Amino acid sequence: MCMTSLIAPSVIMTVQTKLSALRRLMTANAVDGYLVASADEHLNEYLPKAKLRRTWVSGFTGSVGDLLVGLDQAWLFVDFRYYEQADLEVEASAVNVSKLGLDDQPSLSEVLTNLSQPSFRLGYDPFVLSVSQAQDLQKRLTSVGVTLIAILGNLVDQARDQLQDLIPTCGDSPLFLLSETLTGESTPAKISRIREALLRTKTTIVPITKLDQIAWTFNLRGWDVPYNPVAIAYAIITPQQALLCTNLDRITDTSKQELTDQGIILLPYESYADTLISLTQQVLEPRVLLDPKHTTMGTYHLLSSQARVTIVEADHPVERMKAYKNSVEIAQMQAANLKSSRAKTRLMKWLMEQTTVGAILNERIIAQQMEQYYAEEGCQGLSFNTISATGANGSIVHYGTPNPHAQVQLGHLFLLDSGAQYLAGTTDDTRTFMIGEATAEQKLRYTEVLKAHINCAMQRFPKGTVGVQLDGIARSTMWAAGLDYGHGTGHGVGAFLNVHEGPNGIHKRAQEPLEPGMINSIEPGFYAAGWGGIRLENLYVVRQLTPEDHQPKWYGFESLTYIPFDGRLLAWERLSPAQLTWLTDYYEQVITKLSPTLEIADQEWLRQVCHIPVLAS
Amino acid sequence: MCMTSLIAPSVIMTVQTKLSALRRLMTANAVDGYLVASADEHLNEYLPKAKLRRTWVSGFTGSVGDLLVGLDQAWLFVDFRYYEQADLEVEASAVNVSKLGLDDQPSLSEVLTNLSQPSFRLGYDPFVLSVSQAQDLQKRLTSVGVTLIAILGNLVDQARDQLQDLIPTCGDSPLFLLSETLTGESTPAKISRIREALLRTKTTIVPITKLDQIAWTFNLRGWDVPYNPVAIAYAIITPQQALLCTNLDRITDTSKQELTDQGIILLPYESYADTLISLTQQVLEPRVLLDPKHTTMGTYHLLSSQARVTIVEADHPVERMKAYKNSVEIAQMQAANLKSSRAKTRLMKWLMEQTTVGAILNERIIAQQMEQYYAEEGCQGLSFNTISATGANGSIVHYGTPNPHAQVQLGHLFLLDSGAQYLAGTTDDTRTFMIGEATAEQKLRYTEVLKAHINCAMQRFPKGTVGVQLDGIARSTMWAAGLDYGHGTGHGVGAFLNVHEGPNGIHKRAQEPLEPGMINSIEPGFYAAGWGGIRLENLYVVRQLTPEDHQPKWYGFESLTYIPFDGRLLAWERLSPAQLTWLTDYYEQVITKLSPTLEIADQEWLRQVCHIPVLAS
Repeated sequence: MCMTSLIAPSVIMTVQTKLSALRRLMTANAVDGYLVASADEHLNEYLPKAKLRRTWVSGFTGSVGDLLVGLDQAWLFVDFRYYEQADLEVEASAVNVSKLGLDDQPSLSEVLTNLSQPSFRLGYDPFVLSVSQAQDLQKRLTSVGVTLIAILGNLVDQARDQLQDLIPTCGDSPLFLLSETLTGESTPAKISRIREALLRTKTTIVPITKLDQIAWTFNLRGWDVPYNPVAIAYAIITPQQALLCTNLDRITDTSKQELTDQGIILLPYESYADTLISLTQQVLEPRVLLDPKHTTMGTYHLLSSQARVTIVEADHPVERMKAYKNSVEIAQMQAANLKSSRAKTRLMKWLMEQTTVGAILNERIIAQQMEQYYAEEGCQGLSFNTISATGANGSIVHYGTPNPHAQVQLGHLFLLDSGAQYLAGTTDDTRTFMIGEATAEQKLRYTEVLKAHINCAMQRFPKGTVGVQLDGIARSTMWAAGLDYGHGTGHGVGAFLNVHEGPNGIHKRAQEPLEPGMINSIEPGFYAAGWGGIRLENLYVVRQLTPEDHQPKWYGFESLTYIPFDGRLLAWERLSPAQLTWLTDYYEQVITKLSPTLEIADQEWLRQVCHIPVLAS
Repeated sequence: MCMTSLIAPSVIMTVQTKLSALRRLMTANAVDGYLVASADEHLNEYLPKAKLRRTWVSGFTGSVGDLLVGLDQAWLFVDFRYYEQADLEVEASAVNVSKLGLDDQPSLSEVLTNLSQPSFRLGYDPFVLSVSQAQDLQKRLTSVGVTLIAILGNLVDQARDQLQDLIPTCGDSPLFLLSETLTGESTPAKISRIREALLRTKTTIVPITKLDQIAWTFNLRGWDVPYNPVAIAYAIITPQQALLCTNLDRITDTSKQELTDQGIILLPYESYADTLISLTQQVLEPRVLLDPKHTTMGTYHLLSSQARVTIVEADHPVERMKAYKNSVEIAQMQAANLKSSRAKTRLMKWLMEQTTVGAILNERIIAQQMEQYYAEEGCQGLSFNTISATGANGSIVHYGTPNPHAQVQLGHLFLLDSGAQYLAGTTDDTRTFMIGEATAEQKLRYTEVLKAHINCAMQRFPKGTVGVQLDGIARSTMWAAGLDYGHGTGHGVGAFLNVHEGPNGIHKRAQEPLEPGMINSIEPGFYAAGWGGIRLENLYVVRQLTPEDHQPKWYGFESLTYIPFDGRLLAWERLSPAQLTWLTDYYEQVITKLSPTLEIADQEWLRQVCHIPVLAS
């Protein structure tokens, strides 16, 4: 993790003080507004402390939500997942919270349209917006008279500096290498595949700026960023060279030797920009492959400032290579998820026992118990912040901080969404448990969520099927029952990498065909503010069901997660015969896979919770 | 329809002769290849004869499929729907047919990648590619060393001219105006809404180049193009002016007076380019709204050649306005589709009777009978070419020409996909009938297609649902049974306009949220080459199911089409209780809506074919 140094506690500084400092800098840079995006220089989802700029200004800790600072007012734009959290965290007198998707809530474009009478200069840091984001923004905003002004040197960093609030250091965790027995493919082999992609696109240089892409390519990991086992770095691949720019002080001599033996040139992190420019100057007609979705406008500007460079916009070859897990990665993911499955199953038993004997439990104690079980499985860390939510808190989809004052209560639901990082697998699963006796409404809603999960998980589908089609299939029976959820059905998951990765996924914008080896979560839910939330999540790997030469190719999901569901919340009679068959088969596997490593008493308990009653038909 | 003048029959000219003429012109224009797109200057789906350039060169009559002419070889790229048709129509010695979607078949990019060693100049007519298509193509091809070269003056037209093959005239059908009692909104009211859209996007000029957008805006129709009741024209709207450029000779004085009374300026078709440029010169900072998906690169070049013009790329406001049908349009569509439903129901009875008495029928006779029934309902024309396909021909998804030599046979399926244009509604429906006794396999496949249809039709869904989610829902049970179809589940339909329109639809790329008033087909199918095809299609209007102020809003489909399915092909026991309920309700409506206008004997027959057997549970 990043060093957090000794910093002046920011609580003594009000949001107004920070906004004022920022506004002085905006005036100095002749802009009417400044966009404080959620991302950092590597478009990370989880930011090192040093880069939590939007949180530093506004107080909002959610993972997504842009902040627009105008000369008089400021706006935070959040999606469904963060409606409640934003209200709780943001000082309404200083920042307007705009809940995207609700009818009367303005979007960024709409706010800017109102402000731009007749014109508006919107400042932004080109190194924290992707090329696509910046281009889309410019395209949308041109029509309402807004001009984007790239300002080098982040204004939030400058404001923080002026207010003498020390910015934490980062990028100094030990960097470690993974052997081919854990990754299934050597770094030279991967680099050679990247070079084939250069050949196919007739390009000669490809920068890699996303940290998980770099970690995958070089079979390296680090802990520079919370939850994602990555190291802050830049990389550049050419037909002749493979360069890695990172803080070299934290690499052991052995690792340095291993990397240089593989032909990799190690350079300091700060040399990235100069190196990239110098590489473009070494060839006559430099053609640079650049992925507009996964590269910042900062790198784009570096390249477009060079007259001779042709920028070839295309998908980054590493993004798709990384998504197709090889057999070693799948085996590692199976092993890791079995560990996490055992941990959560133990948690389930512990929770049932504790609540039966009337123990007083709160969200934090349960999260700690969960993390203790992960530790006993040998985890390297968590794959995201544990969501441990009792009762109404379960309706906050990304409920961030388990509350020691939020006690579990009889009659309430308890939602536990958690995962861990192991050598060499990443896990993510969610179960919702009943505390005490379930009402008919709780059972109905839980069962509908489980049906959505099963319908998606048991669906066979032909080659070419895109994630959003499966998203519709998951929701179908819930919609028929008048229920829905405001988040995607599933996301891609990395192999000992980011818990959220692309290009695959199962949600409204998931246009990527699902292919064998891709790993996705399936996690439908139901949420009602004040009532609570239900989410049931497993990870699945896409498998080919038909022989290799069969046409058309049919695919299906194979589970990596083996944790019982809560039978006390099941309205069994609402399950179709096909859903019951799927669940029977799933429970057989849960018992087969978990029992060998459980104690006798735990095995007996597992068989009981996996019992499926015989229904009178 | 377009005048077809006296032209030399093109059969005497071989594809090689045409390709040679084209290649001489390519050489003269210093390009290595020429792209003959399927579209014309108005991006029409159905082209006037004068614009059937790709068909003229290659012989392929399908509605979609680009032709690439290289200096030595030529390639036609077709999708699933046209695999068989292309093989039948294209001379393999002159043109390679590439079947997109199959593993070993190269795409346009792949062919060009192979040709571009080290570079390739690809000529094209900027007036027959949309801005998006040209930009996407350029983006994809830049990476493989291909440069797009816009050549003014279509090379196919020039080749045809050189070969002294007279090009038919076009754009001379009588133009007629529709009253507000048929359209529900006056032209001035529509223009005023377009001007509000200009205000919102801070633009001052919007060209309208798509013929259905022009027809909708000006409440006019014509028969310049097959099947689509539109007139070849351009239009331009500014805050002060509304200009319509078209062949004025074919407008009656009364209509001219009516249009000018509404403040519309009438100009000759040829004056479009000069008028557009002159309008941009009349304002200080001309900002032109241009929809890159629905405007040709030709118009884009006209505008971008003017230094002072800012092109604001955005969705065309008319496209979405047109998709939300008002209550008058919905009533007209209901009336029109009831007429077509009665016509097809009569066809169904006629077909059953004829085949029972052993009459010898062929595809053309049946198509003619169908069209006779439409004529008796007072149709203005067909909404597309009737697909009348017996046996194995049913597997050709867009089977274009009913064959008088293809006789219906006992044991075969018969697929009839047809529709008509009425004042003021458009129809499109498909039924598949059994000739004689159905096999278990025919029943199973038919029933699975019907289940897919019903599952989609009965789905309730929340505001925000996009078409592709419903596409997945339609396919789910078919996929589970190992079946699929290679086309979309549904398309948008115009009100007395094009039978295919956007932005709504139910297919893999349908990202538009479905909203009340939008009209879509639902038409799953199943096809097996050599065996035949099944397709079951109705049109539906999206309705809001919840009260206006209810949150969230729930939507559902209401059928416009009321035609029985073929009970002889139904494996009733495969339908779920919910599917049976939907079908029972649907059949009640079929009987209620059709009976009043049927003769007594026909009413009795209708009740029989709508009988649902009581199943032992």
